[in-house]
Amino acid sequence: MTRTAFFISDGTGITAETLGRSLLAQFENLEIRMVTKPYIDNIDKAQSLAEVIQATAIRDGEQPIIIDTIVDENVRKIISSAPGFKVDIFSTFLAPLEDELATHSTYTVGRTHSIGRDDVYMNRIDSVHFALDNDDGARTHQYDKADIILIGVSRCGKTPTSLYLALQFGIRAANYPLTEDDQDEDGTLKLPRALMPHRHKLFGLTIDVRRLAAIRSERRPNSRYCSMDQCMQEIQQAEALYRQMHIPYIDTTRFSVEEISTRMIAEAGLNRRF
Amino acid sequence: MTRTAFFISDGTGITAETLGRSLLAQFENLEIRMVTKPYIDNIDKAQSLAEVIQATAIRDGEQPIIIDTIVDENVRKIISSAPGFKVDIFSTFLAPLEDELATHSTYTVGRTHSIGRDDVYMNRIDSVHFALDNDDGARTHQYDKADIILIGVSRCGKTPTSLYLALQFGIRAANYPLTEDDQDEDGTLKLPRALMPHRHKLFGLTIDVRRLAAIRSERRPNSRYCSMDQCMQEIQQAEALYRQMHIPYIDTTRFSVEEISTRMIAEAGLNRRF
Repeated sequence: MTRTAFFISDGTGITAETLGRSLLAQFENLEIRMVTKPYIDNIDKAQSLAEVIQATAIRDGEQPIIIDTIVDENVRKIISSAPGFKVDIFSTFLAPLEDELATHSTYTVGRTHSIGRDDVYMNRIDSVHFALDNDDGARTHQYDKADIILIGVSRCGKTPTSLYLALQFGIRAANYPLTEDDQDEDGTLKLPRALMPHRHKLFGLTIDVRRLAAIRSERRPNSRYCSMDQCMQEIQQAEALYRQMHIPYIDTTRFSVEEISTRMIAEAGLNRRF
Repeated sequence: MTRTAFFISDGTGITAETLGRSLLAQFENLEIRMVTKPYIDNIDKAQSLAEVIQATAIRDGEQPIIIDTIVDENVRKIISSAPGFKVDIFSTFLAPLEDELATHSTYTVGRTHSIGRDDVYMNRIDSVHFALDNDDGARTHQYDKADIILIGVSRCGKTPTSLYLALQFGIRAANYPLTEDDQDEDGTLKLPRALMPHRHKLFGLTIDVRRLAAIRSERRPNSRYCSMDQCMQEIQQAEALYRQMHIPYIDTTRFSVEEISTRMIAEAGLNRRF
């Protein structure tokens, strides 16, 4: 029997969904279908959604969980008339916060401090373009402007991490691939020359051999590039380099991009721009 | 007088920060300094942070707001000994949810359903590389695989939005620039030929003329490219094309990338992959 959870908002739904997923993740034995419903910002949309909730309750044989950040009072009334176990984020926390802060809240629809601000917008654009211009070792002459330089073997997660750092935190992240071109005659991987002046900005990525082989074989099936031998050799060389040069590194296998990025920020002591 | 809010977690801090920013955004008259402290996952880190909170309370002359998703009981005890107005997300909501779901929660550290899952990881990598390969009209032969194709003038926000859609929702977004190359002899912008078979996937972006001129002049100061005349002409042509072809569009000026992306998903009825 699967239960349903609705994350409902008259804004983006990001707050309701983020909190909802965190709370429900604490019940890992239950299978819960999760549905996000953003921009429920008028009576018509609220009524349609209330009908969907009603139908879901009948289908599931149990009332849905409803986690919301609806600000509009009329919308809120309609949703609260639908059958459900309600986790009302704003009304739970805003009243005590109003007391503590000795002021009334403005209940702006879906508005948060971080959204729509000019400095955030500009920093995001700049950081995303920095990450793109400096992706995969394409350029190295802007490394003095980089906040961090990610290194690792091909397809270990450098690009998504660089972009997440840019979009979410305004951090300027370059990335540079470790390849056989930088091996010694005896097969030992050396720190590429372009990275030497920036050693203090380097952060390594590593990955489980099987995961890497699977990712690479989606791109180039049955190639040497995706063979277990090749993947293992590259990863061992990369990790040996990190240890020898005292470069901090993280294994991306067990972590999401969110976790990799926030761990890097914490470990490298990076300053977020928002 | 500025007050301080701490968003504290033994995981990424994303839930505490997201909820905290949403709540505090409802008090827009107050200036609140916001500090996120992720990975507070042992006694030592907790004790250092408790000292920081103590010092902040003295400096501000008021107790900080503390919004946390700490799971570890020992860490939680230390933080709760520091002076602060506490908004305890888990203990507020998990007990009632445990009753409703008739089961105990597992209180896994920072674990959410969406994190570390293999399908999320693969979909993210694929979608990010799709967005990069299909950025700025670089290719058009993969448009049959695109979930959505963003169009708009240069620097109106296509690339950051495509990447956000990829990272956050696993949506495959291509983007294509509208330029003077696609103008008629009489100066009217026509739908580029490569986009014609995919009209139903198009979503337009537009932007305020002054904002566009400011963004462009950071890139190429004192150029025709960044002049108000040029920006206005391009934007008018683009909007005329959207209206004529019944292409849905959104003004990126007033919205964050989160809002633009989630509105597109809602309006275009896109299916998120996670």
